[in-house]
Amino acid sequence: MRRDARRGQGGGARRSAECRPAPAPAPAASVPSRPVRPVPFPPGPSPTPPGRGSPLLRGAPAAHGARKMEDYGRFLALLASALLVGFMSVILSLVWVFHYREGLSWDGSLGEFNWHPVLIITGFVFIQGIAIIVYRLPWTWKCSKVLMKFIHAGLNTIAMILAIVSMVAVFEFHNAKNIPNMYSLHSWIGLTAVIFYSLQLFLGFAVFLLPFAPVHLRIALMPIHVYSGLTIFATVIATALMGITEKLIFALKNPAYSASPPEATLVNCLGLLLVIFGSLILWMASRPHWKRPPAENAKILRPIAATPEGTEVESTMTNSNADKSDLRGNTEAARKQNIKFDEAGQRSTM
Amino acid sequence: MRRDARRGQGGGARRSAECRPAPAPAPAASVPSRPVRPVPFPPGPSPTPPGRGSPLLRGAPAAHGARKMEDYGRFLALLASALLVGFMSVILSLVWVFHYREGLSWDGSLGEFNWHPVLIITGFVFIQGIAIIVYRLPWTWKCSKVLMKFIHAGLNTIAMILAIVSMVAVFEFHNAKNIPNMYSLHSWIGLTAVIFYSLQLFLGFAVFLLPFAPVHLRIALMPIHVYSGLTIFATVIATALMGITEKLIFALKNPAYSASPPEATLVNCLGLLLVIFGSLILWMASRPHWKRPPAENAKILRPIAATPEGTEVESTMTNSNADKSDLRGNTEAARKQNIKFDEAGQRSTM
Repeated sequence: MRRDARRGQGGGARRSAECRPAPAPAPAASVPSRPVRPVPFPPGPSPTPPGRGSPLLRGAPAAHGARKMEDYGRFLALLASALLVGFMSVILSLVWVFHYREGLSWDGSLGEFNWHPVLIITGFVFIQGIAIIVYRLPWTWKCSKVLMKFIHAGLNTIAMILAIVSMVAVFEFHNAKNIPNMYSLHSWIGLTAVIFYSLQLFLGFAVFLLPFAPVHLRIALMPIHVYSGLTIFATVIATALMGITEKLIFALKNPAYSASPPEATLVNCLGLLLVIFGSLILWMASRPHWKRPPAENAKILRPIAATPEGTEVESTMTNSNADKSDLRGNTEAARKQNIKFDEAGQRSTM
Repeated sequence: MRRDARRGQGGGARRSAECRPAPAPAPAASVPSRPVRPVPFPPGPSPTPPGRGSPLLRGAPAAHGARKMEDYGRFLALLASALLVGFMSVILSLVWVFHYREGLSWDGSLGEFNWHPVLIITGFVFIQGIAIIVYRLPWTWKCSKVLMKFIHAGLNTIAMILAIVSMVAVFEFHNAKNIPNMYSLHSWIGLTAVIFYSLQLFLGFAVFLLPFAPVHLRIALMPIHVYSGLTIFATVIATALMGITEKLIFALKNPAYSASPPEATLVNCLGLLLVIFGSLILWMASRPHWKRPPAENAKILRPIAATPEGTEVESTMTNSNADKSDLRGNTEAARKQNIKFDEAGQRSTM
């Protein structure tokens, strides 16, 4: 058992980068045979409402191999809405630059500038938003955590590249037209967001994707990673709204922005769509009962396995028939360690 | 015991609107005598890291009458930073309008317009931010929940009034100068934020402050209340940044905004301060271990008391020597109800 656990952790990164079928249902009789672990009274507040995301209740179907999401219909409706609003935003940005502006080009003209809104909305808003909720898609829960981390990191890398290209377009346009760079609040906050996003991406790779960071560092950094991810995302949307405001004031002269020509109405609607998209993503990302469930076998293995640095917090072992008899001898230290691991596993699902 | 519980709930709103000294330390021997409640194994992930906000650990000092906040020093540093950044924002907005612009007046001139940034930053950003974290100030934890709800609602009402006055100033200025109203994305999103804020305030009063809403409605609406509060706050800051962008482009002509005159630099810094203030407030508001702890006596009374509609979810009874023997006969239904109440109590602390 101890050897299996170590093998599972050591080779986890390689073997787990795949989707696997749902585990075979455990025999029903095995559920009552689980040891009951006393907790101090009063037990303190539950993190999520019972019946929707309570880990106690969520554990039950998982143990039977049915990884069903609670409130699945609502999640699907919100996801569809987010995708629709996101696609509409990208399409409106294209309508804006092709129908009302100078289209797209790469020659120092306004056509080069126009890559800026298109790539920011496509990459830094839409793709970043999808990257944020990718762990929550329930049909990915049968995939390994490592694979999902690669997808999360990959989408964020694409968003980052598009954001950098879009900034290069603006700088080249400014330089070609002798317009100063970095004078506006939009540029100050936008550049700050890009710098923090790069830092977030680098630290995410180094701490959560590569297998070198010690578990305690992952535990300490996960809440910061989640918070800064969501804050950067909200800041990017705020910056996009400032950019839209700037562009409409500068570009609309006859008729002016204040005369509400069709272009102004269309791009104002684009701004509203960005706010709606951001609100949907933040709602989906902050519902605890839509978190990717922790791998139930990882919990079983945790009290026994040591905590070697560089291993995945959530074990990728899938054997649900592991002998649980060793667990009966849990020490208090192991129990505390277990809580810590549970926490890291849960946090690392966003 | 049963009579006491009902009396505590019925008269809670009146008697509890006060601050009370910390309860006398319970004898150490009483802690182990509490009944141990079995939970299914595995117990699922802990919502907060152990040692910092774990309800199990947080319960212990509370039972001893010492309502100490974990990470108190860090909370205090962040609170001081938020207050400093918030004050600096208000002062910078005053420096802007008095040193660089036309000061303040109420005569349809630019002086009337200038109330808009000053009141939005003072009320809709700074006071709203403080209202969001007011439950988290540890020295208010000895005050009743009802009193804190009044303070939370009162601060939000002040913010709302200042936001409305600031909008009136803009509309009057626009009308006096024949400038169209409501054409910009700033005005569209700003008005949307004010409408949602009014709705939030109204629903907050009706559901969480007035004693008429049934408990299940409070449980259902609390996550929406928290989410929409934070999202509106972030949207207000984004709208303020758009407003700053608009104003600097319109007002700075010779030298223009792109020439980075001192006024542009000062107001860009004001915008950065607003982002920092928002980030600090959102960090403090989203740390689970800084939540106001639920009233421990409420938990003791919950399994026994019925769930009359319109009563406070968290009992305001403070008698820590209540006889706990009745609890030993907990049914499974009472246990589930207890979890639900714990959850509502915990959620309603933000």
